[in-house]
Amino acid sequence: MSELRKDPVIGRWVIISTERGKRPSEFHQCAAPVKSGFCPFCIGNEEKTPPTIVTYRDEDNSEDGDNESPDWNIRIVANKFPALKVEGELNRAGDGLYDMMNGIGAHEIIIESPNHSDTLATITVQHFEDILRAYRDRIVDLKKDKRLSYILIFKNHGEAAGASLEHSHSQLIALPIIPKRVAEEIDGALAYYRYKERCVFCDIIRQEISQKKRIVTENHDFLAVTPYAPKAPFEVWILPKFHEPRFEDSKEGIFESLSLIFSDVLKRLNKVLNSPPYNFVLHTSPTQNNDNMDHYHWHFEIMPKLTKTAGFEWGSGFYIIPTPPEEAAEFLRQTKVD
Amino acid sequence: MSELRKDPVIGRWVIISTERGKRPSEFHQCAAPVKSGFCPFCIGNEEKTPPTIVTYRDEDNSEDGDNESPDWNIRIVANKFPALKVEGELNRAGDGLYDMMNGIGAHEIIIESPNHSDTLATITVQHFEDILRAYRDRIVDLKKDKRLSYILIFKNHGEAAGASLEHSHSQLIALPIIPKRVAEEIDGALAYYRYKERCVFCDIIRQEISQKKRIVTENHDFLAVTPYAPKAPFEVWILPKFHEPRFEDSKEGIFESLSLIFSDVLKRLNKVLNSPPYNFVLHTSPTQNNDNMDHYHWHFEIMPKLTKTAGFEWGSGFYIIPTPPEEAAEFLRQTKVD
Repeated sequence: MSELRKDPVIGRWVIISTERGKRPSEFHQCAAPVKSGFCPFCIGNEEKTPPTIVTYRDEDNSEDGDNESPDWNIRIVANKFPALKVEGELNRAGDGLYDMMNGIGAHEIIIESPNHSDTLATITVQHFEDILRAYRDRIVDLKKDKRLSYILIFKNHGEAAGASLEHSHSQLIALPIIPKRVAEEIDGALAYYRYKERCVFCDIIRQEISQKKRIVTENHDFLAVTPYAPKAPFEVWILPKFHEPRFEDSKEGIFESLSLIFSDVLKRLNKVLNSPPYNFVLHTSPTQNNDNMDHYHWHFEIMPKLTKTAGFEWGSGFYIIPTPPEEAAEFLRQTKVD
Repeated sequence: MSELRKDPVIGRWVIISTERGKRPSEFHQCAAPVKSGFCPFCIGNEEKTPPTIVTYRDEDNSEDGDNESPDWNIRIVANKFPALKVEGELNRAGDGLYDMMNGIGAHEIIIESPNHSDTLATITVQHFEDILRAYRDRIVDLKKDKRLSYILIFKNHGEAAGASLEHSHSQLIALPIIPKRVAEEIDGALAYYRYKERCVFCDIIRQEISQKKRIVTENHDFLAVTPYAPKAPFEVWILPKFHEPRFEDSKEGIFESLSLIFSDVLKRLNKVLNSPPYNFVLHTSPTQNNDNMDHYHWHFEIMPKLTKTAGFEWGSGFYIIPTPPEEAAEFLRQTKVD
């Protein structure tokens, strides 16, 4: 079983794979392009993955009880090499000044399409909407497990962004702790709320709409902007204009407008940056927190992977952004996409 | 001039290059190997870099007034494309809910050798010692500038770790703010100190020496360990066994033992991981802080760049480490180096 370990100085938790430690020779330094050979995520190869958790079909956009039905459109499976496992009890232990927990959690793969060549930027908006609803459904299902504190949904697209399989997929990791970066955001938003009695994200949205210079695109429900102090050049955030702390509590009607703007943003990034590798992550409220979360506001953060100095930035928390977000927004705003 | 901007939610500062914004086509996605053509850092090409700040010669290991002397061993120059500049006044400004400062600071390059093919793992230990003393000297010099709060020394080795020139060099960025990751460490160490009245790093050293399982190598003055909850597989920290908050206040006598262990660790990483790209960063106390810093303890963090999921990790603050640090330490400890 994996272990969760806490840094004794800064309090960040990490997952350590203790079961099958990667040996030195298993790290590949030279970026071998992902081979297009056999793909376990393609339709017809369902028996090559761990069992299906749920499938979604095209016609009726509903969960399908017949999990191995061959006409699936989205298929969610357990990760074959899970970072965390759902079986067992959550035990905490100390080791001198160090703290750990055993690796209880869940690690799922959302296979976004039956077709190997599809990407989130090329599928239909209706299909994209179903993927976003699938994220919501998994959160709603997993938050019943009281051992889990946070459900992290993210995507690695392209080998340079950490995707180990080419076939379009996103991932879900359900954790017994709240990831540090999310906790910092919640804490920062709470400090702002206590001082101003307003949501900092709502204030950001108001200021961005009034200043216009960092807007990439918008619709009735959502705003896509380059953040004022980004972590990466051409980083884009998609923020709901309505205040809602929890992604999974969003009204049913917003998934269409979210898929429209999300698809639009990815197409713009592809056009302007020549189909870059990218990561995105959903930031939403912790699952077991029944407190008033009025200070928090869910959103997606999309980070194209254009630069390579991550190691240094991990060590310092210091980012040098070679393209001002205002210029990045202008490139993205002015490009023409279908 | 560049700008420093503060994230309004989590409070992290970033540097935005406003002067010469990088256009979309200037990001290179495909890792073209660094070309071995003309190199501005090689001996004889001194006029191709910005003016020399200081040179060190081999024989007497002393700073050399004759800066353009051709027999230099280490040469420090201003960065040709500086992230921050030393000229001007430090001005702070608001823009609605956002905060910024102009980009006052310094950005220097430490050219570690006159020879293109040298690396920190192949130069003599005496030469390495001179480089470490050069770091110290630059900190001592720059901390006189009261506008600067932190001096960050780091190295990107190899293209995948962000090095844009192959010739071995490290960098110094002097900042008017304290980088977030360092501030978190200082705050975490202070909380521990207030509770225990002991330095957390001294406690880590005591526990690691007693447990032995994460020790890579050690000598009289220093301990090299894989941290209990690392950010990267095969990450190694070099910690002074003596308590000292400020690198630049370390006794003159320790540079020899530091260069011995640092060189040893880099050779071990090269042997075990087939000469990986890596980053290192020096964590030391802020320069203008005259408070008692008894809770802090300088150290180096060395992070081989073996995995590619940085973007997701930036977005979540969540790390998955495929090799337990105990196994990494054992590989590194047991390998034979000269």
